[in-house]
Amino acid sequence: MGGDHAPRAPIAGALLALAELDAAHTIQLVGQAAIIGAELDGLLYGEFEHTTDARERIEIIDASEVIAMSEKPAAAVRAKPNSSMVVGLKLQSTGDSDAFISAGNTGAQMAASTMWLKLHAGLTRPAVATLFPTKRQPIVVLDSGANVDCSAHELVQFALLGSVYAEDMLGRPNPAVALVNIGEEAKKGSKAVIEAHELLQSAGINFVGNVEGRDILAGETQRGQVDVMVCDGFVGNVLLKFYESVPGFMAELMLANGVDRETVKRALREFDYSDYGGAPLLGVRGVSIISHGASSPRALKNAVKVGVRAVETQMSEHIGRHLERVRPAVAS
Amino acid sequence: MGGDHAPRAPIAGALLALAELDAAHTIQLVGQAAIIGAELDGLLYGEFEHTTDARERIEIIDASEVIAMSEKPAAAVRAKPNSSMVVGLKLQSTGDSDAFISAGNTGAQMAASTMWLKLHAGLTRPAVATLFPTKRQPIVVLDSGANVDCSAHELVQFALLGSVYAEDMLGRPNPAVALVNIGEEAKKGSKAVIEAHELLQSAGINFVGNVEGRDILAGETQRGQVDVMVCDGFVGNVLLKFYESVPGFMAELMLANGVDRETVKRALREFDYSDYGGAPLLGVRGVSIISHGASSPRALKNAVKVGVRAVETQMSEHIGRHLERVRPAVAS
Repeated sequence: MGGDHAPRAPIAGALLALAELDAAHTIQLVGQAAIIGAELDGLLYGEFEHTTDARERIEIIDASEVIAMSEKPAAAVRAKPNSSMVVGLKLQSTGDSDAFISAGNTGAQMAASTMWLKLHAGLTRPAVATLFPTKRQPIVVLDSGANVDCSAHELVQFALLGSVYAEDMLGRPNPAVALVNIGEEAKKGSKAVIEAHELLQSAGINFVGNVEGRDILAGETQRGQVDVMVCDGFVGNVLLKFYESVPGFMAELMLANGVDRETVKRALREFDYSDYGGAPLLGVRGVSIISHGASSPRALKNAVKVGVRAVETQMSEHIGRHLERVRPAVAS
Repeated sequence: MGGDHAPRAPIAGALLALAELDAAHTIQLVGQAAIIGAELDGLLYGEFEHTTDARERIEIIDASEVIAMSEKPAAAVRAKPNSSMVVGLKLQSTGDSDAFISAGNTGAQMAASTMWLKLHAGLTRPAVATLFPTKRQPIVVLDSGANVDCSAHELVQFALLGSVYAEDMLGRPNPAVALVNIGEEAKKGSKAVIEAHELLQSAGINFVGNVEGRDILAGETQRGQVDVMVCDGFVGNVLLKFYESVPGFMAELMLANGVDRETVKRALREFDYSDYGGAPLLGVRGVSIISHGASSPRALKNAVKVGVRAVETQMSEHIGRHLERVRPAVAS
């Protein structure tokens, strides 16, 4: 029910996903049942009339309340136990669902996921990872906005979460994890970053040292490819939003200099965020996929597939096992 | 003597500057006199043979030591009192010079400038501002790397320094100063940023609220144009280095998609950092202009002109007066 184009975009996304996933997968649509039912029927008689078994693989689960995009997260989650957000997540805690996907209020999704799925032992807060397109393959940047004022131990937690994410979700064996910093040297940077650099040496991951702002688009440092870049949520959020504004700026510059629209579109194809669809909330015991509020049906279809992959690779369990092995480095 | 192309680039830059500045301006070349003399003669008999009065407007001041680009700043400044860096800056503290320009070791320049020029009362550390090209006019971003782990009071100091810089150096009356943050709301962000937001309300400058990563390239927020963006040096440095890598990435994408070289060059013209030349070290009692180590003669010519403007607008005195007026907001 949340997100800028609900409930149409999530329902259409679900139908697109069912068409691509094998028949064993089913989808629960959680929200105001009458509204969802009408919208679903409309789509099945219209745009999706060719869809054969979709209706039997969809269950509508009623949830009377809606958390608006502008509501204060923690308060909204407490005040609205019958919201699609809370009802949807609780399905997982009662074993009735494997994964939760939402394009709704991100803060509320984080609060409700933490409350109902719980965090793995050793973690302070969940983190959100974002994929940045680079000259090489996309890199995982985290935290991308959920956590500011991070301690060194929290940065180490992000490193570990990002490492498992890159391995399970992107299929990168032994991912190279780097620390975003203002120089190459171990002793550079803020107090937390300097301490994190030290702790990361014994965190049981493939830590490759610092990465500077100039290395991000290259997707590598002088020491080779990077898969995961770790920073606090303040740096990550400023970087992410800055980066998201680059394609538009590039397009304007190209068009203003006489490059034709088709070429501009082709050159900027790599930046299409809907290819990624959604980001798993990392650290919770379960699967909670965060999608952009403005997600298209195609983006939400991809978000469903991100959820399926997180379930199939058992990413959450993998994170739990890894945390147990390296408790001293992550516990603050 | 410092910088990647010394002493040729600084000397050629000085000759270019003298050709553009009126006859009252003279330049002191500080460093190993024999080497500088030979290089200067070579340029005057070669590339610059058409230059008429340049030689009479140049004074060579001997300084036997050189601080290398890789030396530890504070230690190098202490160990090398006869370096071109220290000798050049001391000329200003003895009244024999109005401005100092260097493409040498930036950290050493900051340390030596703080030691020999001293800071204005009320400041904790000097700051470095960088100009970011945007869709509108360039914006001043500071601190751009000198100061990490900043307190709220230090962020307010940067806001004040940036405001005077924008007014005196860029000719922007009543510059709009914004705080880099992860949201629009006053209560968003890290502890230091939230406190700085509060303090900036009474800092005697035109504070326009928060600016997010996505607003930087636009050069504005919904509330209008922004002239100065304030952040700690960690965020500023990561952003700056990331931004510096964007034109190269754009060029590669365009070339790979068949855009011709001339068009690429034209589209990226705005990003030519040598147009700016140098950044004044803000907060010192005097004029110390920091140029990139790789500066071309043209960039160094522009750096000299930045120095001239800082002297003529009495930027340092302006900063001192402003600090006296708003002492409570900046003093930690």
